[in-house]
Amino acid sequence: MLFTPRTPRVVAARRLHRRRDRETTGRFLAEGPQAVREALTRPGVLTELFGTPAALDRYAALAAAATQAGVPVSAVTDEALAALAETVAPQGLVAVCARLDVPLAAALAGPPRLVAVLAGIRDPGNAGTVLRTADAAGAAAVVFAGEAVDPYNGKCVRASAGSLFHLDVVRAGDPAAVLAAARGAGLRVLAATGYGDTDLDDLADAGALAAPTAWLFGSEAHGLPADLAAAADARVRVPLHGRAESLNLAAAAAVCLYASARAQR
Amino acid sequence: MLFTPRTPRVVAARRLHRRRDRETTGRFLAEGPQAVREALTRPGVLTELFGTPAALDRYAALAAAATQAGVPVSAVTDEALAALAETVAPQGLVAVCARLDVPLAAALAGPPRLVAVLAGIRDPGNAGTVLRTADAAGAAAVVFAGEAVDPYNGKCVRASAGSLFHLDVVRAGDPAAVLAAARGAGLRVLAATGYGDTDLDDLADAGALAAPTAWLFGSEAHGLPADLAAAADARVRVPLHGRAESLNLAAAAAVCLYASARAQR
Repeated sequence: MLFTPRTPRVVAARRLHRRRDRETTGRFLAEGPQAVREALTRPGVLTELFGTPAALDRYAALAAAATQAGVPVSAVTDEALAALAETVAPQGLVAVCARLDVPLAAALAGPPRLVAVLAGIRDPGNAGTVLRTADAAGAAAVVFAGEAVDPYNGKCVRASAGSLFHLDVVRAGDPAAVLAAARGAGLRVLAATGYGDTDLDDLADAGALAAPTAWLFGSEAHGLPADLAAAADARVRVPLHGRAESLNLAAAAAVCLYASARAQR
Repeated sequence: MLFTPRTPRVVAARRLHRRRDRETTGRFLAEGPQAVREALTRPGVLTELFGTPAALDRYAALAAAATQAGVPVSAVTDEALAALAETVAPQGLVAVCARLDVPLAAALAGPPRLVAVLAGIRDPGNAGTVLRTADAAGAAAVVFAGEAVDPYNGKCVRASAGSLFHLDVVRAGDPAAVLAAARGAGLRVLAATGYGDTDLDDLADAGALAAPTAWLFGSEAHGLPADLAAAADARVRVPLHGRAESLNLAAAAAVCLYASARAQR
């Protein structure tokens, strides 16, 4: 018997497309074999796995690993899989996962050498891409602060390409409090802003990027609030050599985080 | 009399949403006041301007500049504007522009110090974002080679945020021929690939990024064809410090192009 779109467990899982239900249950959905593989590396994170018979056959090792971890694995119809997935081609697998964010204090213990703080970033694709880039650059944590997108939004999960499972994800309230906590943990707080008075290259030349650093990024539409930028240790602009008026968020974050990574090697 | 969606000139302009009609006419559409402003900086590029009465009033100086440049400016209904625009909020203006790509030989004359070559990149949003980043990094030209997206695709034009009008855009055929031409113009050809045997930081440390450079980027889905990567002067990987398996195209291009920009200062 395959689960259909009306099977109660499929119905319950589908509700996780809504932020409210993610908040209530502490669960979210992740699509595709790569996400399942990543979730399995974090004990207790994978809580349920749905797959079409063809997918459960093709990814039999993953399904077996889930079963051995005590995770219920259920075969579903193509219609049920389509109802669970947001993408056209999730390769037949959708996982229910437990939220894995950690408290800010836990992420700042250590302390980490590189952290990205997203202040009020609403676009899930942008947020997920920065998560992926932060992971690639070796950041230990990404903090979603203020009126930010839900890190477990489906589009954010997909754009992170697995990185959501790799580093510490923090959901915090007031960005100013995050900034103060980061500084308290010994990190230098750098606000990335097109209006910054400090050039990123000059900072790199001065050897100022080797210190433990928290990068603060604002939304592409609204930038960083002035008071938040003012509270950082420096306001840093990526140099614009041509005639572009600005960089998009993902590109600016890539340049800033990789400048730190290079200095911290 | 406002133009409606059925007015022949509106009907003709709407057809430019289709690539075939862009190819036939040599025209494309650009939305919003920023695009109009940019198009006006390039003589002969803006060929027609449509706006709602409210937008033509709000951007009266732009409309006047268009008229003075001999460009027909027409007031259209909200319905006609919506038919011409692909976005929900184009701020009331849609411009018809003449294609502004230049031959490869013209773009390589000089020669330029920094060029981006997009080989077989199909996603218009990615291509437009790389255009914008290349402009910001000071690249003189972006070459669309092989089975690439049309640079005048609406989504690419919008993602470029005006940069389409700033630098030399080239539409070329065979990427291998582009590579040979770039090398013939004295540029070092660097293929960006996750499987590269050369680390970007090592290349920077060795001072090898200061030379005039053409960066070669492949699609995120398929990467660079092996023979093309093999024909480059070096195959360069952006270092992955964390556990991410790769960077997305826009982030990788930002890191590579800015590494060159920094070395070429």
